[in-house]
Amino acid sequence: MLEELRHEVLDANLALPARRLVTLTWGNVSGIDPERGLVVIKASGVAYSSMTAADMVVVDLDGKVVEGSRPSTDTPTHLALYRGFPELGGVVHTHSTWATAWAQAERPIPILGTTHADLSPIAVPLARALTDEEVEGEYEANTGAVVIEALGTHSTDEVPGVLVPSHGPFVWGPSPAAAVENAVTLEEIARMALLTELLRPNGPPLSKAVRRRHFERKHGPGAYYGQLP
Amino acid sequence: MLEELRHEVLDANLALPARRLVTLTWGNVSGIDPERGLVVIKASGVAYSSMTAADMVVVDLDGKVVEGSRPSTDTPTHLALYRGFPELGGVVHTHSTWATAWAQAERPIPILGTTHADLSPIAVPLARALTDEEVEGEYEANTGAVVIEALGTHSTDEVPGVLVPSHGPFVWGPSPAAAVENAVTLEEIARMALLTELLRPNGPPLSKAVRRRHFERKHGPGAYYGQLP
Amino acid sequence: MLEELRHEVLDANLALPARRLVTLTWGNVSGIDPERGLVVIKASGVAYSSMTAADMVVVDLDGKVVEGSRPSTDTPTHLALYRGFPELGGVVHTHSTWATAWAQAERPIPILGTTHADLSPIAVPLARALTDEEVEGEYEANTGAVVIEALGTHSTDEVPGVLVPSHGPFVWGPSPAAAVENAVTLEEIARMALLTELLRPNGPPLSKAVRRRHFERKHGPGAYYGQLP
Amino acid sequence: MLEELRHEVLDANLALPARRLVTLTWGNVSGIDPERGLVVIKASGVAYSSMTAADMVVVDLDGKVVEGSRPSTDTPTHLALYRGFPELGGVVHTHSTWATAWAQAERPIPILGTTHADLSPIAVPLARALTDEEVEGEYEANTGAVVIEALGTHSTDEVPGVLVPSHGPFVWGPSPAAAVENAVTLEEIARMALLTELLRPNGPPLSKAVRRRHFERKHGPGAYYGQLP
Repeated sequence: MLEELRHEVLDANLALPARRLVTLTWGNVSGIDPERGLVVIKASGVAYSSMTAADMVVVDLDGKVVEGSRPSTDTPTHLALYRGFPELGGVVHTHSTWATAWAQAERPIPILGTTHADLSPIAVPLARALTDEEVEGEYEANTGAVVIEALGTHSTDEVPGVLVPSHGPFVWGPSPAAAVENAVTLEEIARMALLTELLRPNGPPLSKAVRRRHFERKHGPGAYYGQLP
Repeated sequence: MLEELRHEVLDANLALPARRLVTLTWGNVSGIDPERGLVVIKASGVAYSSMTAADMVVVDLDGKVVEGSRPSTDTPTHLALYRGFPELGGVVHTHSTWATAWAQAERPIPILGTTHADLSPIAVPLARALTDEEVEGEYEANTGAVVIEALGTHSTDEVPGVLVPSHGPFVWGPSPAAAVENAVTLEEIARMALLTELLRPNGPPLSKAVRRRHFERKHGPGAYYGQLP
Repeated sequence: MLEELRHEVLDANLALPARRLVTLTWGNVSGIDPERGLVVIKASGVAYSSMTAADMVVVDLDGKVVEGSRPSTDTPTHLALYRGFPELGGVVHTHSTWATAWAQAERPIPILGTTHADLSPIAVPLARALTDEEVEGEYEANTGAVVIEALGTHSTDEVPGVLVPSHGPFVWGPSPAAAVENAVTLEEIARMALLTELLRPNGPPLSKAVRRRHFERKHGPGAYYGQLP
Repeated sequence: MLEELRHEVLDANLALPARRLVTLTWGNVSGIDPERGLVVIKASGVAYSSMTAADMVVVDLDGKVVEGSRPSTDTPTHLALYRGFPELGGVVHTHSTWATAWAQAERPIPILGTTHADLSPIAVPLARALTDEEVEGEYEANTGAVVIEALGTHSTDEVPGVLVPSHGPFVWGPSPAAAVENAVTLEEIARMALLTELLRPNGPPLSKAVRRRHFERKHGPGAYYGQLP
């Protein structure tokens, strides 16, 4: 079932090593069929080199396996995000090197340039640390909860991802492929921001005028970036 | 029309990902036919993996599309540079990682070695920041204006590129391919300079004697680098 | 003899350059047949590009060559580890860049995130420096001794590798392939930890609750990471 | 003439981009036929992608072209090294990123680990800066002179390369291929040393006992690294 979504999710998972966002098996992409309320996600601990559509698991929004083997350990986090943000089409989690360095340093990624503003008009938020009780309880679902909490009043369009402290990024988009593209962008922003920090520690953020201009020209109502549909 | 230039510009655009100067679609190369006053540039938001000569757009120097679809968002910056510097044959804009880190740190790239002097005898200039009014007005054309302003009394031969603060490099050359080669060099200079900064913060610039010697042996009237024509 | 193990060890050695863990010939993997008490290891100074199963040398646990040419210079270290830790199936030594930087800085790799906790619940230990007498005596065997000493009361399951100061990592696992996988993980942890240090020098280690959760969900009795066997 | 040497030198030049030691055309390898007193070196400014044996130029030890087109601009430096060190078989010059960062920071590369000691028992020397007169005179030959001067009482076996300040490394060996291998090693040592500096600025050098042990086990009279000849 869900053959088309299954292939989209497989392709998006395979894009992670191709884009150098994962080492070994440390990453996963999911996609949702919002009408049926079913999510397709990578099976747990499967090697990317031998992954096929059969390694994509179908679960419902409560985490019940509908088809396939054991889903990714991070499935409850993905499901929490789909329940919290019904507008999402795909979710990606990686331990990509540079974004994870910011997460481990427990710092949000400051907005220092137009590459960042083309993606989001604000800093990439850092979720709060889970309490010991949250870690010892429904850890993965609670991880989803602090990610949602980190958005505050911002929309998922404005904020395409959040850093979980000491862990790594969770990123989303309107489709699995778009979520991977946002994860690629986040990783490059993280890398540029770290190198910028080395040249000028704790510099000021990008001016509001440039942030607005770049974000709007790509994502606003009068967007003039990309081809007309 | 302009079939030869169109292919030159396509090849130069395809060189950007091959040289690891772009992530996703963040870069563009243009070339000019100075006799006809026409510029060929990449279409906006097109993926490099599927790009063909048909994705190259022909515009006149006022930005009117003569052939093709919507040109790169940065087209008005390219056109401002061709109008300001009639000697140019090609212009490149990227968000290449290391040069962009310097741009985001709002620091010119100091001249610290002979690799830099082989390209230019002075620091890579940092343009001034645009005012909010300039950002909210003709943003892309105004970006071209501050790049031109940043050269001061220097020629485009001496200064093959400029950093736009919080944004990234704009680079040029006598042809689209030569502009890409300068962008490759600028990126490597930016990387070496950042690593040098880590080992010796704010060190002195290269001596004038070495700067002159290296720049002249490659670009001066008595140049003895490369093969005789 | 030992054809299967010989091929496993060859494949594991070839994985080192493929995973970018070695430059030139600087690395070696061994595997043990615990019943026969025989170890298969790469020959000394052999190029990876032309390596075949015939370049794998068979030695006994005292270092006597049973089949093949001169074994890797580091063989006595491997043998000391197999004698000290009879549960091991494979041992890897590399000079991988980022782990070696920590070894050269004579610092253990602090546990700063869940990527690390998925591998081990504590910092990657730094062995003590060898005395001049140990260096001038049975240097390679003494290197094995300080690695064993560095584990203290921890098991080889909890600590999959140790940094030898000013030298590099020695890593192990239940098989040659598993040892290489641990070496890949260690290198990525070392890289992330160094980048984290640049953003937040000497930050606090990961909380005990998260360490326990991540290590247990992958390696504990109630593990729920990966596929059921 | 010198067909075999010509192919050795071609292969060694082609190894530079394969080993990521050069960007664009910034590097050159030469080899000598000591009996005839003739040197084969890359032509100036030739692209690596289209290089053939015909692009190798034969010069005598005074720099007179015996066969071929204009030799590399750095030829007088190579020739100075062959005249000063008659035991050399090959010389390499690159602007490899990490070694050049040390050269630009005008710091010798400290000996911080066994990877370095396997190559050389002392720091990689930094030559003195050329005077303005030396730069304005026979610049390339004078560069060779300060490299030779930098060795002091050390042999070319002990010191396989020198950093020219604000420029980059010059490296040698008993053959063109061996010189390239030393350049690969030097670049990796430079990278590890810079990363070590970030973790522990200005740390102590490797102990004399370990330096001696590692250098001798690979290069000394009782060497036991590698295969028996």
